Amino acid sequence: MKTDIITIGDEILIGQVVDTNSAWIADEMTKIGTDIRQITSISDSKQHIFDCLNESKNDVDLVLITGGLGPTNDDITKETLAEYFDTELITDKDVLEDVTNFITSKGFKLNEQNIKQAEVPANCKRIRNTNGTAAGMWFESGGRVVISMPAVPFEMKEMMQKSVIPLIKNHFILRSIVQKTVQTYGLPEAMLAEKIANWENNLPPKMKLAYLPSPERIRLRLTCMSDDKQKGEEQINNQIESLKNIIGKYIFGIGDIFLHEEIGNILRELGKKVTTAESCTGGNIARLIVSIPNNSDYFDGGLVAYSNSVKNKLLGVKQTTLDNYGAVSRQTVKEMAFGAIKMFGVDYAIAVSGIAGPGGATEGKPVGTTWIAVANKDKVWAKKFTFGNRRAINIRRATSTALNMLRLFIPEN
Amino acid sequence: MKTDIITIGDEILIGQVVDTNSAWIADEMTKIGTDIRQITSISDSKQHIFDCLNESKNDVDLVLITGGLGPTNDDITKETLAEYFDTELITDKDVLEDVTNFITSKGFKLNEQNIKQAEVPANCKRIRNTNGTAAGMWFESGGRVVISMPAVPFEMKEMMQKSVIPLIKNHFILRSIVQKTVQTYGLPEAMLAEKIANWENNLPPKMKLAYLPSPERIRLRLTCMSDDKQKGEEQINNQIESLKNIIGKYIFGIGDIFLHEEIGNILRELGKKVTTAESCTGGNIARLIVSIPNNSDYFDGGLVAYSNSVKNKLLGVKQTTLDNYGAVSRQTVKEMAFGAIKMFGVDYAIAVSGIAGPGGATEGKPVGTTWIAVANKDKVWAKKFTFGNRRAINIRRATSTALNMLRLFIPEN
Repeated sequence: MKTDIITIGDEILIGQVVDTNSAWIADEMTKIGTDIRQITSISDSKQHIFDCLNESKNDVDLVLITGGLGPTNDDITKETLAEYFDTELITDKDVLEDVTNFITSKGFKLNEQNIKQAEVPANCKRIRNTNGTAAGMWFESGGRVVISMPAVPFEMKEMMQKSVIPLIKNHFILRSIVQKTVQTYGLPEAMLAEKIANWENNLPPKMKLAYLPSPERIRLRLTCMSDDKQKGEEQINNQIESLKNIIGKYIFGIGDIFLHEEIGNILRELGKKVTTAESCTGGNIARLIVSIPNNSDYFDGGLVAYSNSVKNKLLGVKQTTLDNYGAVSRQTVKEMAFGAIKMFGVDYAIAVSGIAGPGGATEGKPVGTTWIAVANKDKVWAKKFTFGNRRAINIRRATSTALNMLRLFIPEN
Repeated sequence: MKTDIITIGDEILIGQVVDTNSAWIADEMTKIGTDIRQITSISDSKQHIFDCLNESKNDVDLVLITGGLGPTNDDITKETLAEYFDTELITDKDVLEDVTNFITSKGFKLNEQNIKQAEVPANCKRIRNTNGTAAGMWFESGGRVVISMPAVPFEMKEMMQKSVIPLIKNHFILRSIVQKTVQTYGLPEAMLAEKIANWENNLPPKMKLAYLPSPERIRLRLTCMSDDKQKGEEQINNQIESLKNIIGKYIFGIGDIFLHEEIGNILRELGKKVTTAESCTGGNIARLIVSIPNNSDYFDGGLVAYSNSVKNKLLGVKQTTLDNYGAVSRQTVKEMAFGAIKMFGVDYAIAVSGIAGPGGATEGKPVGTTWIAVANKDKVWAKKFTFGNRRAINIRRATSTALNMLRLFIPEN
């Protein structure tokens, strides 16, 4: 079953935003067993939308459109689709109710533009949007389904997950795909590839492996095309077991999980708590921990200790330590970690101090130099890393590396 | 002058990677005055590449292609373009030299695949690649230029900057474009649109406005097509001045700036410092402040005060306040802010306490309820907001709203 994705809107064409929606949609659609034939970005132009829909007419079964549903004048997707599917716009009672609820829940009054948002083409199936004012639309014509969604990522994603994907699964006969992702951290891509080359070369012919690297994790995605879902799952599980024998300690989870989520699972299970003492990561570790609901089971709070004075006065890092070894040193991160455990009265601490760049390099400590410590009240591991030249990436890598160190520290201590 | 961008390769179509190349190219091409008509991602398929080039034949003057130039069997762009432009592959002496230099400089020996990389279609102009083995290619046919480049981002970017953009500027007569972005926060898109509708409707015909909303800011982008660059700039500046008269207090900057950057500019100018006391945002405000280099001029650190116990023991929020009013209350965020100013010994504090969800709602305090305070040592503003149901978005909106409150607080206090 073939699918096209069309994004409508100038912001992508002028390079003002990166089209992350299409990648997300393509990933979701691939997972349920459809093939993406083409991804197309076009402007808010009626003729171009018409051309684009006409060109793919005989090639695809499904078209997923995002964008052009906003309340402003340049948004013309709805009117254009009404014309393309030869119908008129009508005010939909349910959509109007959704829009009214949405607007009034924000403490605003319904205005004319909001009411216009409740108009939808008469011959489409409406798809609810609980996060915004633009409803989704499902058209069927000549055996092809065309779906229009808002481009605001969280509105689109929830609409896809709650409504669109279930509707697609219901409407089309999809080929069966089994997919599992193995989450790894700690081995760079090239070394990982070398270590598992033999295993990879011996995968069954119907199984495919993809590397998906990021500063947060390297995902190894196994895909198995199989008519027998259970058999496919068994085959994948067997391969994952073999993989664990080769790179077990680098695997932190199976499925769509991040290091900060796994840390949460480990701590909750043990009934223990962690705190953070962050210099160069500036609160990035804490905010990832807090991004997970119910983190209060294992997190009371943490300190962003950016200046030396805060490291000294609030965490109790000795002034002589800072003077003799510098803020980016084994001694400082050790004292930061122990200081944080005392300050917050919890079981474990993560401490990070590094030179994120672009400035701050000193003799023997280039940009990217980062010391990380993980500790309980009795014991500490501290390790130096040399990341790269880019501030944002250095912060992300320091964050993941610190979380990974805690993951390995806890079971041994 | 109209341009198409085509990316060739499966990894984008299955959602494995986000297509950041196209956004980068689109931005560069827009800046030199060309219009991107369409961005298309397709697989390594000869027929599809042919179709894609044929469809745009009469619509565009320039096609920029990336991808499919690697040494493996699924890479067919070069062979396909040779066939499309009715020519054969020949080994190019200069390209072979570049490939040889590149491979030997890495300490490798030239292999058969490398030598194949030095073959190029006979009738194209070769574009050098100093960072890899795939040369760029420039075809001219029927008044249209088609350029093929490798998809590896840093190879493509350097090739664009060093060769392709200068060649394009030389070949085409480009129109001059002036663009400015007005950054706003505090008015939702629909209300903003209503407030400035009159101004928008009276924009000169050659000027276009685009709304680019996100939880961090709503960008208003003005584009002016003008043969006289200086005159265009003047016209845009005049329009921005009029806009300031209508929504001045919601505008926090001109150009590509975020609230946390502007806060940094304001504080640095005044020689003042800020700290943070974050509950539901969990360090997200602090990490944004730290994401900017040289933030130590105005930031020493902050506290993530997630549990009531940390709010009480470290920030000094009275136990009776927490008992009587709850952690999500005007009284609590006020005491958090004053407590943080004392704890860190700085001029200003931001304090946030809210119910980010999905759990935690209580009678009269639904998910999304968030109290934010900004203070100096004498005065505090505290305000309640009701965001939505999604934890991640609530955290982002609480963060932006808090930064915006501080931006408005500082000049008045």
